[in-house]
Amino acid sequence: MPDPRYAASKEVAKANRAFYRAFEQLDIAAMTALWLDDDSIRCVHPGCDLLVGRERVLGSWLAIFGSTDAIRFELADLSIEITGECAWATNVERIRTTLRGAEHVSEAIATNLYVLRDAQWRLALHHASPIARRFPA
Amino acid sequence: MPDPRYAASKEVAKANRAFYRAFEQLDIAAMTALWLDDDSIRCVHPGCDLLVGRERVLGSWLAIFGSTDAIRFELADLSIEITGECAWATNVERIRTTLRGAEHVSEAIATNLYVLRDAQWRLALHHASPIARRFPA
Repeated sequence: MPDPRYAASKEVAKANRAFYRAFEQLDIAAMTALWLDDDSIRCVHPGCDLLVGRERVLGSWLAIFGSTDAIRFELADLSIEITGECAWATNVERIRTTLRGAEHVSEAIATNLYVLRDAQWRLALHHASPIARRFPA
Repeated sequence: MPDPRYAASKEVAKANRAFYRAFEQLDIAAMTALWLDDDSIRCVHPGCDLLVGRERVLGSWLAIFGSTDAIRFELADLSIEITGECAWATNVERIRTTLRGAEHVSEAIATNLYVLRDAQWRLALHHASPIARRFPA
């Protein structure tokens, strides 16, 4: 008998991969489809302030995709927790970006929070933050 | 008939206030009691890497409390979402710290994720990140 928690965890991991794939492919339709279809959604890009609601969150992805030539993620330390119809993934993002012709390498920590709606794990919140130092500083 | 979602939201707001109060009071016992009692807990301090598990997360609070003379938070833009037994609060933290005699003022965005366990909303994740710029940059 398969463990339903294991199956759910695999589904969340799949949604999390789809998020980074949409980001790498700069695919606004795929990115839009990954988020909950309501104004509760929230997003924090590294070093930025909080964005709330469909217009601001999806608008930020459109702006990022429009100014990014290429981006590649290597993910580390992925871990997933599930409680009922909520799941949160945390992972390290090792990021290679080509932005207006120049390559940048950076690292961020991401919290990606998913809610199960209509049998799909949809993004409710993405919070990414730059890593300036290990703790303790 | 009271709306149970409104009541839950008030309870989460109360837990969120208790978190910042424990932080301001540098009270490690109160802080410890606010977190889930298992190794799934995760914490990201502003600009820092990801900490997972009781020992690392609570150890980080002990280290912060030990090196902080005084800290005061002014919270803005609090919003709370609840799905089943999970709740997430986001807020802006306006922070005044006295650290080894010097006062610092900073701003961070926090995601505080709570899980309802034994009728208490307990912290599962705290992710705070510095605000370097508004979006779009």
